[in-house]
Amino acid sequence: MHDRKRTLVLPNAWDVASARLFEEEGFSAVATSSAGLMVSLGYQDGEEIGIDELASAVGRIAKVLEVPLSADMVGGFGSTPSDVAKAVGKVISCGAVGVNIEDFAHTTKALVPLEDQLSRLRALKDLQKTCGVPFVINARTDAFRFAPGEQDARLNEAIRRGTAYRDAGADCVYPMGLVDAGSIAAYVEALDFPINVMVRKGLPPVAELQRLGVARLSFGPSASYAAMGLLRRASREVLEKGTYESLTEGAITFDELNSLAAPKKKAEA
Amino acid sequence: MHDRKRTLVLPNAWDVASARLFEEEGFSAVATSSAGLMVSLGYQDGEEIGIDELASAVGRIAKVLEVPLSADMVGGFGSTPSDVAKAVGKVISCGAVGVNIEDFAHTTKALVPLEDQLSRLRALKDLQKTCGVPFVINARTDAFRFAPGEQDARLNEAIRRGTAYRDAGADCVYPMGLVDAGSIAAYVEALDFPINVMVRKGLPPVAELQRLGVARLSFGPSASYAAMGLLRRASREVLEKGTYESLTEGAITFDELNSLAAPKKKAEA
Repeated sequence: MHDRKRTLVLPNAWDVASARLFEEEGFSAVATSSAGLMVSLGYQDGEEIGIDELASAVGRIAKVLEVPLSADMVGGFGSTPSDVAKAVGKVISCGAVGVNIEDFAHTTKALVPLEDQLSRLRALKDLQKTCGVPFVINARTDAFRFAPGEQDARLNEAIRRGTAYRDAGADCVYPMGLVDAGSIAAYVEALDFPINVMVRKGLPPVAELQRLGVARLSFGPSASYAAMGLLRRASREVLEKGTYESLTEGAITFDELNSLAAPKKKAEA
Repeated sequence: MHDRKRTLVLPNAWDVASARLFEEEGFSAVATSSAGLMVSLGYQDGEEIGIDELASAVGRIAKVLEVPLSADMVGGFGSTPSDVAKAVGKVISCGAVGVNIEDFAHTTKALVPLEDQLSRLRALKDLQKTCGVPFVINARTDAFRFAPGEQDARLNEAIRRGTAYRDAGADCVYPMGLVDAGSIAAYVEALDFPINVMVRKGLPPVAELQRLGVARLSFGPSASYAAMGLLRRASREVLEKGTYESLTEGAITFDELNSLAAPKKKAEA
């Protein structure tokens, strides 16, 4: 699916309902949003949730989804490469067929040393061969956000890391924080490889991303941000005006919601 | 809180994030939506989820919420009054301080015989006295939807059942399906007691409900319907037009989302 001629649009869900809604709307794959899924269950974005509860949440979604599911694994839930491979293995055994893995610590915002991150990626490459599921590794770098220096220096470090992740066998590289067409074009040109960008205000539309050679566009946590924004508007409307338009206009029905609990084929049967 | 002079507006959440968002917006209590919460976890509305997973989901929300939480218990998760009391006890021990209990079977849409429902309510009254938490019992009747006969006959059966539930010690009666001011006024007048109505298209605004003497207005699953409607619009926009306005306009931020995982006081500290 990571064809640079046709940008794969990958919506990130926070639960079964949102994942199945995206599937119903015709996306060819779905991913989880770490922040969306974790906050939904009462954990801040990061590794506070623990690998078992994350794997169980991914499993709930994979169980009812017919399209492929990619799981956001944040920093990999392990201090050693083999611990990270073990954690990823759990999520793959719960039904994910792709993972995101980041190169920074959520708590400190410090970048993981490049060599350490490469060791983790190599451990995942080994897992790909042995686990029976040729899962997709989307190697994320947050160097553009957290490396020292000015924007150019940070972009260069993100390119240096992305190139190293590509060479270590990642299937896609995800440079977090790129928004403008110029930076995206520079990144694609430097790596000549599938890259992932994330929806945010100011990002060029899909057609332009495709022209720039972007292989994959993910929603990140934006669906969660938008849904909570809607609840905020609805709350203010009912508390201040005493009306319910934000809740009742453009909503789905009970039967439509209920059908999202079952696999698509079953729901349509 | 069930003061008929001032309608309590009770938003129904599907997870921790939506519950905490409502709390941040200033609601004085929050409830769960059975359909919203269950579909979020991969179960159809009803008792398919099982009491342990429901109690665990309620517990996750109660843990981070500072305002009172009421849990929708659908048909009570038990075939005998003591099983129902045991199930409600589990949810109360997980932090809920109120429950909804219905008088119909989700699978067959058949109304539970009135005497059976009264036995369940009496078992809950006993539990109120013994469990140490003076939880609120919101007794729902679906007679207006599922009793035989024309609209008048169904409204009369809903009144007959609601009156019996009131006399059995319910704290609030919830006649499902009432939308127009006339039926709501007739119901309030007949019971002279706190009643709960649900947000839906055509429901009079809060100020009019208050004039009619409605004690409590709940969202039901409407926040889930609306959130899924938003994801549908966002999906169609990105798939058809290649843009992201539905995702980026009126959205909350990462920090705002992340703060919903922690209790309000902690998030503001």
